[in-house]
Amino acid sequence: MIAMDLLTVKVGDEMPLLERRVTQSQIDAYANASGDHNPIHVDPDFARSVGLPGTIAHGLLEMAILAEAVARWAGGYARVQGLACRFSKPLQPGDTLLCTGRVVDVDAMNQLIHLKLEAISGRGDRVLTNGRASVRLSVDNPGQPGL
Amino acid sequence: MIAMDLLTVKVGDEMPLLERRVTQSQIDAYANASGDHNPIHVDPDFARSVGLPGTIAHGLLEMAILAEAVARWAGGYARVQGLACRFSKPLQPGDTLLCTGRVVDVDAMNQLIHLKLEAISGRGDRVLTNGRASVRLSVDNPGQPGL
Repeated sequence: MIAMDLLTVKVGDEMPLLERRVTQSQIDAYANASGDHNPIHVDPDFARSVGLPGTIAHGLLEMAILAEAVARWAGGYARVQGLACRFSKPLQPGDTLLCTGRVVDVDAMNQLIHLKLEAISGRGDRVLTNGRASVRLSVDNPGQPGL
Repeated sequence: MIAMDLLTVKVGDEMPLLERRVTQSQIDAYANASGDHNPIHVDPDFARSVGLPGTIAHGLLEMAILAEAVARWAGGYARVQGLACRFSKPLQPGDTLLCTGRVVDVDAMNQLIHLKLEAISGRGDRVLTNGRASVRLSVDNPGQPGL
């Protein structure tokens, strides 16, 4: 289950690319789950009326995909201690989101790995930038939830 | 719609508290929307078998509530440029999440407001810590998605 090797992880290591296609039905489901029913996410006519090319995904849905990429590499959400990103460009339904990450620090003292992350769309837009995650090398306490 | 006053916002200003009760049905909906069906979120027996008191909410669902608190204060998700937090303690269904935030910098040059954020549970657990958000003072381009 653990994609990274805890004993050999080093600065410069790259996470496997995670690619997910986001559909309008997933955006609709996310709107229901989050309670964020802003019509820019669910109503194409409204989205176009405010200058968007159509509906766009919720930023937190994009961030959830980025979190999944980290969790898969780290060996589970419980290892993901922290997450950050900037919401830079919209993602439209039908687009893919490609998540990448690279180890920038291994903090043996605090048992933490720090990564830089980015997510780009299939059309090359930098959707999530300035991404960062901290990953626990060990998970002693199952009460630590991670994500 | 804009809860903060852009002309008078200053360091030390506090966001209105946002309180949300998280239910198992919302966690189930979030599992479906995100594709994260880890049984610690949806199966109480499994969650207890790994030492948890019962199911726990997804961290990104908690973060979505924190994002909502920022967006309500900022006058919309499109103003929320970036978001970060640490996942510190689990939140159980039935618990409330109370989100707070305080302005720590007003960057007039870059038209950005920086906030520190925290989310605690109704039982006093610090669920999300080290929270940070950057908020745009203006949204010129509707193509900027925010969240």
